[in-house]
Amino acid sequence: MDPTCDPARTTFVDVPADSHFPLQNLPWGVFSPAGGGRRCGVRLGDHVIDLGVLQRAELLAVAGLPYDVFEHGSLNAFMVLPAKVRRAARARIHELLSDDCADLRDDAALRSRVILPLAEVTVQMPVCINDYTDFYSSREHATNVGTMFRGKENALMPNWLHLPVGYHGRASSVVIDGTPVRRPLGQMLPPDAEQPVFGPCRLLDFELEMGFFTAGPPTALGEAVPVDEADDRIFGLVLVNDWSARDIQKWEYQPLGPFNAKNFATSISPWIVPWEALQPFRRAPVAQDPEPLPYLRGDKSATFDIELEVALTTPEQREPHPICHSNFKYLYWTMHQQLAHHTVTGCNLNPGDLMASGTISGPDRGSYGSLLELTWRGTEPLQLPSGEERKFLADGDSVIMTGWCQGDGYRVGFGEVAGEVLPAREG
Amino acid sequence: MDPTCDPARTTFVDVPADSHFPLQNLPWGVFSPAGGGRRCGVRLGDHVIDLGVLQRAELLAVAGLPYDVFEHGSLNAFMVLPAKVRRAARARIHELLSDDCADLRDDAALRSRVILPLAEVTVQMPVCINDYTDFYSSREHATNVGTMFRGKENALMPNWLHLPVGYHGRASSVVIDGTPVRRPLGQMLPPDAEQPVFGPCRLLDFELEMGFFTAGPPTALGEAVPVDEADDRIFGLVLVNDWSARDIQKWEYQPLGPFNAKNFATSISPWIVPWEALQPFRRAPVAQDPEPLPYLRGDKSATFDIELEVALTTPEQREPHPICHSNFKYLYWTMHQQLAHHTVTGCNLNPGDLMASGTISGPDRGSYGSLLELTWRGTEPLQLPSGEERKFLADGDSVIMTGWCQGDGYRVGFGEVAGEVLPAREG
Repeated sequence: MDPTCDPARTTFVDVPADSHFPLQNLPWGVFSPAGGGRRCGVRLGDHVIDLGVLQRAELLAVAGLPYDVFEHGSLNAFMVLPAKVRRAARARIHELLSDDCADLRDDAALRSRVILPLAEVTVQMPVCINDYTDFYSSREHATNVGTMFRGKENALMPNWLHLPVGYHGRASSVVIDGTPVRRPLGQMLPPDAEQPVFGPCRLLDFELEMGFFTAGPPTALGEAVPVDEADDRIFGLVLVNDWSARDIQKWEYQPLGPFNAKNFATSISPWIVPWEALQPFRRAPVAQDPEPLPYLRGDKSATFDIELEVALTTPEQREPHPICHSNFKYLYWTMHQQLAHHTVTGCNLNPGDLMASGTISGPDRGSYGSLLELTWRGTEPLQLPSGEERKFLADGDSVIMTGWCQGDGYRVGFGEVAGEVLPAREG
Repeated sequence: MDPTCDPARTTFVDVPADSHFPLQNLPWGVFSPAGGGRRCGVRLGDHVIDLGVLQRAELLAVAGLPYDVFEHGSLNAFMVLPAKVRRAARARIHELLSDDCADLRDDAALRSRVILPLAEVTVQMPVCINDYTDFYSSREHATNVGTMFRGKENALMPNWLHLPVGYHGRASSVVIDGTPVRRPLGQMLPPDAEQPVFGPCRLLDFELEMGFFTAGPPTALGEAVPVDEADDRIFGLVLVNDWSARDIQKWEYQPLGPFNAKNFATSISPWIVPWEALQPFRRAPVAQDPEPLPYLRGDKSATFDIELEVALTTPEQREPHPICHSNFKYLYWTMHQQLAHHTVTGCNLNPGDLMASGTISGPDRGSYGSLLELTWRGTEPLQLPSGEERKFLADGDSVIMTGWCQGDGYRVGFGEVAGEVLPAREG
């Protein structure tokens, strides 16, 4: 086992027992200390570790790690490094934070500069995202949506079982946990109307997704990343809320796909859980029938057992009310396959590309990853303990997504991605 | 008239009479001198002007222009400036290159460092592209494609006359003029086949488009750019070849739009013709019926009279053979409307976003902007003087696009965007 994943290792930093961020996780992120600036770090319990300070203290001597790599305000300069260097850096950071290493543990002055309470910093967008792609890789989700819009017989498009359908999204409007999302204005065709109207979206929805960031040196145009090389090309995972304006989408999406219905915001959790930290939770992927074409096959393709939950608060329902329990393992297409498909044409990658999974729905109603499915297009509204009901999101509602891998007595988790719906701009 | 557009003004730099790049153009770009590095410049005839050297010589004193703005290896740091500052910089550069200004004209030592023969530099990608969007704004093109795939009755989708349909594209694979394009491998469903196959694209096509780059300070999430503010938000225009794999596209595009069919390459001309330089060629837009919703109306919406041509060379046809004559003015939706539609949901802009028009087809066969239309889906192959025929592109073919505004005795042009088709990678 990779020692950074060893559940027996402990840290001298105080970590709450139920934390998503034990020593086995050490997710990457960017934060601003009280004095300002943008610093690269990892999270440990309710503390952040300032990697630039560690490096300047000459405690991060790792072959191939540039001296100023954590001083650029985003993780991209680190993400561009080969997998071997990134893993060695993780291993050294893990070691420095372990009980049995004295270098940092016994240097109180350095500790106070390196280990900062989370409450005293501001968490920032961790990556300068070059390109954002969204897949559509849950068979249950595609079947549910297809059934609603085209009937049960034509639910899955003929291509769906042969390739991981995906489309390009808007990178500029990817935001982190806690960023409010303004209800979009847009054009839609009301039911039975002949002419479209302009106004606030009425069918605002979330989509429960996860996404991975790419890493490694940029690939050349014309080059492909095979399924079995994906492990070296995936930096880590985040939770993704792909906010969706269903009424705008329905009117606009033919024939070139969703555009305004999605471009107003996509929210991610800000701590990138390393690919390495997820390996103990690796599982064989879903059996695929028909067998995919050879370029989508590989011995190393895999999924992960990641529990996912969505909760809702409203102006009256202040206690988060769980409305969905799903799991990453339900996805039909793996991230290895997504990456191979994306690049098989020769599309080039940069470190810091974000690729999201598409809505992760499970087999039963309680595991559906969007309100569209949970309320079956609004026909079966959710009943909240407050007495309210919801077909779609109302102003003042917050959507809170969380996810974790359950180990034996510990969790490797993703924290949260939450966002409150603000009223639409005055038209 | 903006003095930078005055056809009567002349320069002391030698400019060939038929050049696309007279003093009235001065397009922005980035180049590498023989010694390396990346420099921001403008083009004048067959010379490039090194703006960083001009600024260090203290000849570019413009209020609000940061001292190192041209020293970042791309134009983004300049594009972020307010329109007023960018226009003042253009006016000053224009003045410095005019016959009647002695500052540069009479300083031979400085001239030799500022004014470099194009042949001695390497032209580079001018912008770090944050996001790339492609619209679908030619009524003739949408009608032609719709007729082929859905029949004449259903050619235009119901939404098409109500909004400028668009979708997000892949920014990483945007390349400049002269970059060879490798035929993509991908998945497709052969005619009458039941199962998809993997292999080299057989129906490789070009799309004649133009694109604009955004400028000005980043907009906030939730903020919209109205039609009448677009003039301050558009930096300039380039030619765009939206390479398309028709067979991959046909199999993959439902329901989320083109993905692998387009993500392998998009080519642009490297000199960005300033929005200001195009104003003498501004025309009233095409009449729109039905009248669009108010957010798509504006007094300042306009189009431009820009002649467009596509020529082809093949391994046997070495002389470029013109196969399409079109014009930017045929577009139904204006760039003002595209920008307003893109942002009406609150989607935020960064300087350096690229937004392309979609294929620009005119009313008759000779003006169609893709081989799909020119050969009517391959049913009427092009006959070349070499005796060859083409339904779609063959390996070794080059597509050469050009465009210009015709003034009285001069042209404001875009140069070329050309690209040769390389054979597919070994699968």
